[in-house]
Amino acid sequence: MKKRHLLGIRDLSRNEIERFIETAKGFKDVLKRDIKKVPALRGKTVINLFFEPSTRTKTSFEIAEKRLSMDVLNFSVPASSVVKGESLYDTIKTIEAYGVDFIVIRHSSSGVPHFVANNINASVINAGDGINEHPTQALLDAFSIKENKGSLEGLTITIVGDIYHSRVAKSNIYLLSKFNNRIRLIAPPTLIPDIKGFDVEIFSDMDKGLAGADIVMMLRIQLERQGSAFFPSIQEYFKFWGLDKRRLSLAKKDAIVMHPGPMNRGVEISSDVADSPQSVILEQVTNGLAVRMAVMYLLSGGVDS
Amino acid sequence: MKKRHLLGIRDLSRNEIERFIETAKGFKDVLKRDIKKVPALRGKTVINLFFEPSTRTKTSFEIAEKRLSMDVLNFSVPASSVVKGESLYDTIKTIEAYGVDFIVIRHSSSGVPHFVANNINASVINAGDGINEHPTQALLDAFSIKENKGSLEGLTITIVGDIYHSRVAKSNIYLLSKFNNRIRLIAPPTLIPDIKGFDVEIFSDMDKGLAGADIVMMLRIQLERQGSAFFPSIQEYFKFWGLDKRRLSLAKKDAIVMHPGPMNRGVEISSDVADSPQSVILEQVTNGLAVRMAVMYLLSGGVDS
Amino acid sequence: MKKRHLLGIRDLSRNEIERFIETAKGFKDVLKRDIKKVPALRGKTVINLFFEPSTRTKTSFEIAEKRLSMDVLNFSVPASSVVKGESLYDTIKTIEAYGVDFIVIRHSSSGVPHFVANNINASVINAGDGINEHPTQALLDAFSIKENKGSLEGLTITIVGDIYHSRVAKSNIYLLSKFNNRIRLIAPPTLIPDIKGFDVEIFSDMDKGLAGADIVMMLRIQLERQGSAFFPSIQEYFKFWGLDKRRLSLAKKDAIVMHPGPMNRGVEISSDVADSPQSVILEQVTNGLAVRMAVMYLLSGGVDS
Repeated sequence: MKKRHLLGIRDLSRNEIERFIETAKGFKDVLKRDIKKVPALRGKTVINLFFEPSTRTKTSFEIAEKRLSMDVLNFSVPASSVVKGESLYDTIKTIEAYGVDFIVIRHSSSGVPHFVANNINASVINAGDGINEHPTQALLDAFSIKENKGSLEGLTITIVGDIYHSRVAKSNIYLLSKFNNRIRLIAPPTLIPDIKGFDVEIFSDMDKGLAGADIVMMLRIQLERQGSAFFPSIQEYFKFWGLDKRRLSLAKKDAIVMHPGPMNRGVEISSDVADSPQSVILEQVTNGLAVRMAVMYLLSGGVDS
Repeated sequence: MKKRHLLGIRDLSRNEIERFIETAKGFKDVLKRDIKKVPALRGKTVINLFFEPSTRTKTSFEIAEKRLSMDVLNFSVPASSVVKGESLYDTIKTIEAYGVDFIVIRHSSSGVPHFVANNINASVINAGDGINEHPTQALLDAFSIKENKGSLEGLTITIVGDIYHSRVAKSNIYLLSKFNNRIRLIAPPTLIPDIKGFDVEIFSDMDKGLAGADIVMMLRIQLERQGSAFFPSIQEYFKFWGLDKRRLSLAKKDAIVMHPGPMNRGVEISSDVADSPQSVILEQVTNGLAVRMAVMYLLSGGVDS
Repeated sequence: MKKRHLLGIRDLSRNEIERFIETAKGFKDVLKRDIKKVPALRGKTVINLFFEPSTRTKTSFEIAEKRLSMDVLNFSVPASSVVKGESLYDTIKTIEAYGVDFIVIRHSSSGVPHFVANNINASVINAGDGINEHPTQALLDAFSIKENKGSLEGLTITIVGDIYHSRVAKSNIYLLSKFNNRIRLIAPPTLIPDIKGFDVEIFSDMDKGLAGADIVMMLRIQLERQGSAFFPSIQEYFKFWGLDKRRLSLAKKDAIVMHPGPMNRGVEISSDVADSPQSVILEQVTNGLAVRMAVMYLLSGGVDS
């Protein structure tokens, strides 16, 4: 692969996306072995630079990195010299001087990974930037869809929740749009995004948006951030935009339910749906490892280098 | 070993306890080498999941894990997605989806490790749950007793301190009761536990409880938690239940002094006792590494697998 | 090398300093390779014990340690049992009982690394103690000077900033004094140190202190600590003791500019100077890795052991 960075889905070709998924498939086989580790990137160094709190994505990257036999360094905001007032530019140039091979970066401001990529001689992976993109999540979602549906094309995919603030939703819209799918968005009127140039249908009535869907992709309501600003109450939210058994029955019989986690049970999703056979939420976790291993492997040059 | 989890001492047979200690002895020899590392669990992944602050136990596990060549992930509460409101069940199922081999868990609520063990396909090790058990501490204490006394049987063991809140005391009582020992408990009247079905003698006069003991096992007073609620003052505490040279002289001449650490010098133990030749407190630290290596080695199947 | 600890530059002979630099040169070659890791200290354990916040030095040590294939444990204050009131002495004896090979320690009190070294059977490396010493910084600075100037002798070195509080300045003065250099110090009158027995020239006029210098070594103003106590304002500080292009032109044409980082651009150094071809600030970062690898390698016995 000629790409050096993974900053967003927007810049990827269909071929590149398919290559990531194909390679992830191989790594998923590794994850089924007793010893889940390969020497592929032994001796390489990665820094996980998380300027926003995160457990799930950071852990997933850390496990993926260790299973590729990399040396891993973790930076999180309060521990970092950001508190000493150093500029982001100087932090990046310092990391470059350490000679690291990869930077995995999450930041609350959109565009930071691009700024980093422009200023460092290392591979940069966007682990979520502001309300912009979360490309590894979209890749693992695509991998999960392909595994379950046999194809990434010709599907009706309904994304439900706070689409406005969701980088997960955006990366998924960018990816799924490249593969001739029908994309529907269901959101409270205050959380509908302005996605220009993408062919999406917008619903505020959840029942209508779910009818006949192949994929129901739920988003996490970020209770700790949005609070009551965008909708009256949790009860209200669940009543209008929560996924329960009855609503799921409106989708296709073999529809699958996805969620990037962590879930708020009883807020955006009911427990019986979360734990139903149609849910692939835990598969997504495993696929996340495989996809992140694939991304780092391919960006480092993979077998072609 | 057929056991997969180590949740408590209560469930262990004498044979199993002896097997842990015997194996720890072998690992202690490894710890005396220049290179203290063995490839026994290379490629296996462990998550240290500490929902209570801990340095000592966590560090001991982490070193033991690295010396077995495992890949180690550390989770502590404030960094974890607990802050995002995810349920413990979902956290566990997510960790299971990562395909980890071991979970080492400490939690302020009794029974959490059992809940985890019932819901995950991985080996669970209880690193302390509420006021219930701390099994690796009891095993390392037993190993230290056997090393110093040549036997785990027929001894008079006096445990002193806040027995009510102490999972260390409880696991030790469960273990030592299986080996025909005479167990004495010394505690302030407010901190005497209700241990049904165990043959223990309870003292509130420290001098009497120490008379003729082979082992004096001091507990840590958790100043940061109990404060003044259970006893009037530190000075009072030391006066009535602190171990000093004079009191130690009431025990057998060759009695050994134990403490799980970290010590409050001048609160539950005087410095001259802590640093005396009768103290095996630092040996306990080394034995803790050996025992934790043995536990993970045996739970993973050990040589028999 | 017979030395076991690196506590300060003061105790080092010229030979020892040259040996560190020579060995660092070899490790720098390793850092230019695709795989920057060597098995030199495989199986050895190091604890990074940081009682003061630090990102840069800690990260540098951690990368250096991992590139030597060591097992690394990180302790920082809030996570440590210091909160539980354990004495430093007991913390050290516990770490010794773990059988670690190296302790890298930073502490806000001068002399703590010496106390640790006197009480532990392990190699101790001072990563900065109070206002006393920061020996690995002085060694990496010396390495950077020698690389750029071809020699460590006969140079005019001007150190600018808060010399009073700076352990970096002190370690550099001790080191450079051993090699027949002319040392000049420029500092606000309130921040002039009392360095007895060292042949230094003190300036409060920056232009005069810079005239004809081979090396301009800027110190970091610790805005988060010193605030307004020692000088009126940041603007004032930059006006009198900040390094800009005009001032740098007073030094020799081929003078190099150094800074231990993290920089406060616009406070002690202007951006055009920080990013100029005369700046070796990012080389210092890389050299820091090489020097720290060399220090641990030589203290462990190196090839001679």
